[in-house]
Amino acid sequence: MNNFDFHNPTHILFGKGRIADLSAQVPVKAKVLILYGGGSAERTGVLGQVRSALGDRDVVEFGGIEPNPRFATALKAVDLITETGVTYLLAVGGGSVIDATKFIAAAAKFEGDPWDILTSRGAVVKDAMPFGTVLTLPATASEMNSGSVITHADKGAKLPFRSPHCYPKFSILDPELTYTLPSRQIANGVADAFVHIIEQYLTYPVNSPVQDGFSETLLRTLIDLGPKALEAPEDYDIRANLMWTATLALNGLIGAGVPQDWASHMIGHEITAFNDTDHARTLAVVLPALMNDQRETKREKLLKFAANVWGIHDGDEDARIDAGIKATVDFFHLLGIKTRLSDYNVTASDIDTIIGALTDHGMTALGEHGAITPKDARRILETAL
Amino acid sequence: MNNFDFHNPTHILFGKGRIADLSAQVPVKAKVLILYGGGSAERTGVLGQVRSALGDRDVVEFGGIEPNPRFATALKAVDLITETGVTYLLAVGGGSVIDATKFIAAAAKFEGDPWDILTSRGAVVKDAMPFGTVLTLPATASEMNSGSVITHADKGAKLPFRSPHCYPKFSILDPELTYTLPSRQIANGVADAFVHIIEQYLTYPVNSPVQDGFSETLLRTLIDLGPKALEAPEDYDIRANLMWTATLALNGLIGAGVPQDWASHMIGHEITAFNDTDHARTLAVVLPALMNDQRETKREKLLKFAANVWGIHDGDEDARIDAGIKATVDFFHLLGIKTRLSDYNVTASDIDTIIGALTDHGMTALGEHGAITPKDARRILETAL
Repeated sequence: MNNFDFHNPTHILFGKGRIADLSAQVPVKAKVLILYGGGSAERTGVLGQVRSALGDRDVVEFGGIEPNPRFATALKAVDLITETGVTYLLAVGGGSVIDATKFIAAAAKFEGDPWDILTSRGAVVKDAMPFGTVLTLPATASEMNSGSVITHADKGAKLPFRSPHCYPKFSILDPELTYTLPSRQIANGVADAFVHIIEQYLTYPVNSPVQDGFSETLLRTLIDLGPKALEAPEDYDIRANLMWTATLALNGLIGAGVPQDWASHMIGHEITAFNDTDHARTLAVVLPALMNDQRETKREKLLKFAANVWGIHDGDEDARIDAGIKATVDFFHLLGIKTRLSDYNVTASDIDTIIGALTDHGMTALGEHGAITPKDARRILETAL
Repeated sequence: MNNFDFHNPTHILFGKGRIADLSAQVPVKAKVLILYGGGSAERTGVLGQVRSALGDRDVVEFGGIEPNPRFATALKAVDLITETGVTYLLAVGGGSVIDATKFIAAAAKFEGDPWDILTSRGAVVKDAMPFGTVLTLPATASEMNSGSVITHADKGAKLPFRSPHCYPKFSILDPELTYTLPSRQIANGVADAFVHIIEQYLTYPVNSPVQDGFSETLLRTLIDLGPKALEAPEDYDIRANLMWTATLALNGLIGAGVPQDWASHMIGHEITAFNDTDHARTLAVVLPALMNDQRETKREKLLKFAANVWGIHDGDEDARIDAGIKATVDFFHLLGIKTRLSDYNVTASDIDTIIGALTDHGMTALGEHGAITPKDARRILETAL
């Protein structure tokens, strides 16, 4: 096992009716900015519950945060904070709203050009406003980590940052809030969490039975419950287990002490930046192609994945690896997620643009060995056409 | 899954050479009280490393904390804190030293009789001194939780408390520090961690595949590596995986959202209070007897335990449950731990004393259903003679 630090101070309040506990988490004298996305937070009544739980606190609201949240939108929220003297942020939504809130929390305390937060991957962040979250979509684990991804539309860039100052103080995870989500968002969330786990699990062995066993548990849970969640949207236990799985998929636990990949994410981000394809769908395109391409460097873990996650024990090594990759593709299809670039209107000539952007963003040494170059990424994308 | 809160702010620094990072964790201007147990901390050089890492800080030391740490000893440390104006505590040792440090941290800030901290199970604790730990023995997970158990020799009492103020600020987990431990302590640590997991896993099903899968991973890791750790004391990976397993066994994660038992612990504590038998050995006596006695209320989980932890799939239900219990007993024996009361000089007539103490300490409704009475505990102990 590798040396590691693990420090995750976010307080999770999980279960039915937990929005009622909001008042005990937000300082009584806080002036609160509620951040949210589209109209669904209002329609479903979540915003109403939140306002009610905040009681007499002075509240300001900022809606309209997009999927793949935009840099320009976040800066508008920072301006609003300055104008109104808000002291505490409350994200109500999924990963996009929470990611935006992290960036806003950091940018509001940052002196200088907030773009530097992204280009430094968060290294310049020395402070951030306190914030909590009310999660409405299980997917990104942003509710229990310090990372965020922000898109700059004009620059065609989708860049991640993280900072120890950007952990939510608390996150409320009420599985009932997910009942009204569109199937597409649930499917995306399951696929996103699945690939988060894979990025930390499917690398090379470092003798880490605990992290591997935890990852396999989370993967098996997604495989079992993901399709069921689409069929039975109001089954509490299914939604609860999916929600907790997605959080644990990227809260630092399963990645502690093991190598990590993240090439699928970095390549996928450029596809989203290119034509706004859903994040999870870009992962479902890139991951199988990358698994196949990197089968030599990932051989031992691909075999373990096939055996322990999919129960594949028959055939020679390459047959078992192939079967594991095929099972992964079939799983995405079962979720209604297509897995070829052409399904998302990306053509062979578009790959030039995507690889150019990847190079421009400094993503030139990806993967657990830092050995995946833009040339390799091109080859991977070409097999995913 | 049940509603739950999960909030564990302890910063873990895991791996080789991490004592060198101590200086970044302890405030520069702190006056530090180093707390430790017997002479081994000095002999093995750990204390020397710690003193060196603390640099120019003003340091006071307090040694002699016992296994099953004593109330009276802890109060002496509180007096020393008052006399010297110490501002930060640093526990260097295993669960006993860390448990004592938690109690000392709380007692030093408590106005009133510190005994109330234990009789209230920590409810009266409103503040505690900040403290970190350098772990030398993987076993109790005290390095990453807020719980503690203190023994009052004169009262014949061993009582637990917990408080959100009693999480370590940080814990350094260097597996190499465990190389010099006596086999007996390693064996005890493995058995203790094993039973911690069982207390949170082997209850009744609440549809929690993640918690169950994590628990099964940790149990399988202990079963695989526990005996190997005794044979190869300087195998880094074995010690590293055991250390992380023991921490995760009781840091709140696997118990979040599921019922918990803890009857074996509460009954076992009274055996230790009676004749100072090692904590882990009391658990190895009580647990198999309790599993057998409670086979109806625990039936579904006993079957899952047999199948997923021990790979037992043959025979009818009771045969599989019996085989799972036998495998558990055999595992304790493989660790060199005996599993009968008579092995520890406890006779039939001593059970009266033990059950009397259990009753006196209010432990009259134990187990995940609160249904194990002193009468049931007596029956369990009688089958363990």
